[in-house]
Amino acid sequence: MIIVMKRGATPLQIDRVIKHIEHAGMRCQVIDGTGWTALAALGDKGPANLDTLDGVDKVVPLGLPYQLAGAGPDRLPTTLQVRNLALGAGRIAVIAGPCSVESRQQILDIAHLVREAGATGLRGGAFKPRTSPYSFQGMGERGLELLAEARTQTGLAVVTEVMAPEQVAIVARYADVLQVGARNMRNYPLLVTAGESGLPILLKRGFSATMEEFLLAAEYILKTGNARVMLCERGIRTFEDHTRFTLALASVPYLHETTHLPVVVDPSHGTGKASLVAPMALAAVAAGADGLLVEVHADPAAALSDGFQALVPAGFRQMMADCRKVAAALGKTL
Amino acid sequence: MIIVMKRGATPLQIDRVIKHIEHAGMRCQVIDGTGWTALAALGDKGPANLDTLDGVDKVVPLGLPYQLAGAGPDRLPTTLQVRNLALGAGRIAVIAGPCSVESRQQILDIAHLVREAGATGLRGGAFKPRTSPYSFQGMGERGLELLAEARTQTGLAVVTEVMAPEQVAIVARYADVLQVGARNMRNYPLLVTAGESGLPILLKRGFSATMEEFLLAAEYILKTGNARVMLCERGIRTFEDHTRFTLALASVPYLHETTHLPVVVDPSHGTGKASLVAPMALAAVAAGADGLLVEVHADPAAALSDGFQALVPAGFRQMMADCRKVAAALGKTL
Amino acid sequence: MIIVMKRGATPLQIDRVIKHIEHAGMRCQVIDGTGWTALAALGDKGPANLDTLDGVDKVVPLGLPYQLAGAGPDRLPTTLQVRNLALGAGRIAVIAGPCSVESRQQILDIAHLVREAGATGLRGGAFKPRTSPYSFQGMGERGLELLAEARTQTGLAVVTEVMAPEQVAIVARYADVLQVGARNMRNYPLLVTAGESGLPILLKRGFSATMEEFLLAAEYILKTGNARVMLCERGIRTFEDHTRFTLALASVPYLHETTHLPVVVDPSHGTGKASLVAPMALAAVAAGADGLLVEVHADPAAALSDGFQALVPAGFRQMMADCRKVAAALGKTL
Amino acid sequence: MIIVMKRGATPLQIDRVIKHIEHAGMRCQVIDGTGWTALAALGDKGPANLDTLDGVDKVVPLGLPYQLAGAGPDRLPTTLQVRNLALGAGRIAVIAGPCSVESRQQILDIAHLVREAGATGLRGGAFKPRTSPYSFQGMGERGLELLAEARTQTGLAVVTEVMAPEQVAIVARYADVLQVGARNMRNYPLLVTAGESGLPILLKRGFSATMEEFLLAAEYILKTGNARVMLCERGIRTFEDHTRFTLALASVPYLHETTHLPVVVDPSHGTGKASLVAPMALAAVAAGADGLLVEVHADPAAALSDGFQALVPAGFRQMMADCRKVAAALGKTL
Repeated sequence: MIIVMKRGATPLQIDRVIKHIEHAGMRCQVIDGTGWTALAALGDKGPANLDTLDGVDKVVPLGLPYQLAGAGPDRLPTTLQVRNLALGAGRIAVIAGPCSVESRQQILDIAHLVREAGATGLRGGAFKPRTSPYSFQGMGERGLELLAEARTQTGLAVVTEVMAPEQVAIVARYADVLQVGARNMRNYPLLVTAGESGLPILLKRGFSATMEEFLLAAEYILKTGNARVMLCERGIRTFEDHTRFTLALASVPYLHETTHLPVVVDPSHGTGKASLVAPMALAAVAAGADGLLVEVHADPAAALSDGFQALVPAGFRQMMADCRKVAAALGKTL
Repeated sequence: MIIVMKRGATPLQIDRVIKHIEHAGMRCQVIDGTGWTALAALGDKGPANLDTLDGVDKVVPLGLPYQLAGAGPDRLPTTLQVRNLALGAGRIAVIAGPCSVESRQQILDIAHLVREAGATGLRGGAFKPRTSPYSFQGMGERGLELLAEARTQTGLAVVTEVMAPEQVAIVARYADVLQVGARNMRNYPLLVTAGESGLPILLKRGFSATMEEFLLAAEYILKTGNARVMLCERGIRTFEDHTRFTLALASVPYLHETTHLPVVVDPSHGTGKASLVAPMALAAVAAGADGLLVEVHADPAAALSDGFQALVPAGFRQMMADCRKVAAALGKTL
Repeated sequence: MIIVMKRGATPLQIDRVIKHIEHAGMRCQVIDGTGWTALAALGDKGPANLDTLDGVDKVVPLGLPYQLAGAGPDRLPTTLQVRNLALGAGRIAVIAGPCSVESRQQILDIAHLVREAGATGLRGGAFKPRTSPYSFQGMGERGLELLAEARTQTGLAVVTEVMAPEQVAIVARYADVLQVGARNMRNYPLLVTAGESGLPILLKRGFSATMEEFLLAAEYILKTGNARVMLCERGIRTFEDHTRFTLALASVPYLHETTHLPVVVDPSHGTGKASLVAPMALAAVAAGADGLLVEVHADPAAALSDGFQALVPAGFRQMMADCRKVAAALGKTL
Repeated sequence: MIIVMKRGATPLQIDRVIKHIEHAGMRCQVIDGTGWTALAALGDKGPANLDTLDGVDKVVPLGLPYQLAGAGPDRLPTTLQVRNLALGAGRIAVIAGPCSVESRQQILDIAHLVREAGATGLRGGAFKPRTSPYSFQGMGERGLELLAEARTQTGLAVVTEVMAPEQVAIVARYADVLQVGARNMRNYPLLVTAGESGLPILLKRGFSATMEEFLLAAEYILKTGNARVMLCERGIRTFEDHTRFTLALASVPYLHETTHLPVVVDPSHGTGKASLVAPMALAAVAAGADGLLVEVHADPAAALSDGFQALVPAGFRQMMADCRKVAAALGKTL
């Protein structure tokens, strides 16, 4: 790390920082700039609160904080295959379905519909994190059973959310991929327990997470020995008020530079408005996304949650057709 | 709720929305403006996805979403007393201590120190949510035992964080107040389990939570029958880069208008910089805060977590003296 | 507009608001919900500070605030043609060039290069708004002369920034399109003076502007009688720190729903990182952008401003080839 | 500056950066960390686009970017006195008045009222920057004449906004202090022209300006030789929707550490809600503000602009009384 001293730091203050660095078992290199002084702390040991010392302006941490998630010259991009759901190496996966599982008929109908349109994954919440305690909270285990039945009929891989460590065992019994939602990206006990299930994890970016925090959350999972992690950009909270969130698509190419993990985009939550979903799905494919997570509902006006951002079947089919064209133009398949 | 139609919505579209409202058991009142049309849906029933219908521009929800947390002409501000820790009705409580419990000597020393300076609550993390899996994760149950010992010696009320539903039982065995951290404000299973413990809850605002989301999180706890909830403003994530978070103090008077629950401010996390903590503690008292949550460490440079935002003992004593003066000037005690 | 009363507003307070509405020449319609009361003010007259009255919770303005910029069933999307630069109706224009005009050789070389790669507009700053007074501030009128010479040689339309009302006359003498930069989106005297020049205006979104504020800034120009306005999404300021700004691409389809004006995207400022520019240019085309504004420099390491976000010539040619493929896949030309 | 190389940067890439540094006349010091390499560029010369070179991860600029605005061991805090308006050295100034000058009677009445309550400055806009071209744009020069008349009657120093370089001469004829509004913080030609007037400048922070950008805007003024600059925190744009802006009060102590210029707080724009103004004014005083800028209107419901955030006379008097108590408690006068 590099420690930048304040303008006017005294020799005594500088000396104290040097001693601190050396006391922690690191070597110190002094850098005398014009009008500034910095100190480099060299060695393996971790941070040592140097920013608490008098005369220190700021500390620039160096070295990669996410050792397992980071890209490297020696690391190929991770590809994933779960049933027919395949991501990476030029293949783009579409995971589609309703926000929540609402009934047997609903989930079976949608599952057939999205499979026919080309999806390989089925989304649908059985345990739902809802902002209000008075909103529909999901069907629970019965919803999981229905998802499994839909899988049996269609061959789609089931992607569904898990909200607490003690739910992991039951959700893992039915799901092909565990989703950790945006609200739980910093729920570290959940990340660890989900990781230990051994199932692939779809990790959604927190509303207000930086890329470093997002990758460190992935690191929690990878550290359990589970290497099958998909990152999902789903929009961040900003001052914008014409969309539910701001879909920050530049995170797609940025993550491809920074990590070997595949990147999925959720244009449904990312916009919160059905009419904007298809254009942003196209944009995600063009930006290099390895997958899409899209909400589809046969009758959004009757949905029990988030109907406002669900595509109707015809809209979903059109989106798929257009995404396939853009993918093909860039030499990929979807 | 009120449904605003798009400019140029057709009579057919308007008619369909009216039918939808009536089908849901609500009455519909048409409002014909100059250049706009709106529809009011009157009745008890909840939302019905009206924003998914063609021709609808937006839906304005009305009525109070947080029925238990909301202020009202008939509701007095909630006051709380746990051991000597008393908030509300002109009394300002200070909860102080280290970020993490690090050793027996450390926590006992700080406990005595903050009590002598006037604090009535002791903070200190035993289970620590950390952004990186490689950071110190807390002492666990041993930390809780040490907190309890510090309480025995000082009489301070112990406030400590719980991170997962399955930790609630063990933390509740030692703590006087359960803290739900900012990262877990949307961890709904945790809110419910913590609420069911019956202990007072210090609920921190999420980094990116609106006031409505914050109050709905409190509502999850109140709905369990546990009325002893303190709200804690601890800073939000914005574009500012000179502080760790942006401490949004206007939430203090806003919450006093909107809810009957007491409001605590955490100037340590809210700024992330030791030199800014005391001025913001003073500002919080002046803005009407019912309590302060402050990090204090005898030797910040040796802290195992967040040393950069901890006050040293002398700084804490000075802050307490100044806060007492401001409180007195406004007719309160601290 | 609709006025929502607070829970517990008294009949007297409601009555006072009604009187206020009627006094302003509007009619008032009372809406009695379950647990809430709202009042609709009907008529042509503008707002009347109703939010200052006791018992009022909030005012929901209705009607379109941007009458000239707004889309409507009777309004075709605006297309623009300036020399060979054509936007709209399926044609995507690329405006490329350096951040600043730096020398005769530099601008002529880049102009030829971008034209050969397919651009129809040439960007380049002569008057530069710079965050620091110590940074390069542009070549001034000499820069404009060089842009005009580049136009003579290449036929490219010249797009260049104007920073103050008194610069409009001189910049208008050389430019084909006046650019109003993000920092000046709320510089209303500049918007009016630039509009009155009669030249097409490229209006960039402010760092922190909502869509409504952006369209109202366009309205300032349109109100001068100048209908040739292009809107440019160039990224907003958020908490993200891995890019210079957050490129909010959902504004492209949103603006296409909301206004008849064409939409240009600037992936260079929108990311601030050369390696992210091409993927985001592709994403912008896929999202439906009518144009791209891209920084290109023959030797970014020698640039006098913003070299870090400029494409090198080979990178620009590759971006153009890929954008052409995506445009073709969606039935457009670039 | 310090240049951090990417993990896996090749010796050739490192060598090229070193050559670049030396070619620019700087010396280069190599820092070999564990798993990382950094290069320090030493010498007077400015940046050289090193972030555009292959293998460079990021550049950490060092040295103070705002040489005139920066605090230093040798620089006393700036105090200002204009008529009776005095800031700094323990004196807190209150500048109060309506958003806009609306009529002779209105401004004279308010001027007398705020003076009697203890204000020493009179605010009031004659040239108004308004988001919509259809809103009231101010009385222009007639408004300035009325402000001057109010000054003659009350002795208050007149603080009023200037929106364009060509308005500076006329506004300077009447005003005691020129206000540069938040929308114009990055209007560099205006900063220079206003600075050259020689009058004291009240510079408001832009909605989305970092502290560094704010201080660099002040530097534009200071560089004209005009040392009488007041910085005004007036709230930033964030995701919060219960207030108009987020009043970031930690900027007060931060600016006191970082610059010698006095700091004024505007709780009216900073909250946009009359009921929150007084608590935030108190908080600003407690946080160390040198001045307050407050909107007051005798009849907010009849105001031509921003009535929703104006205090009524009784509210203003109460705020002054309370602020005086808090100031006294901290050893200051107001």
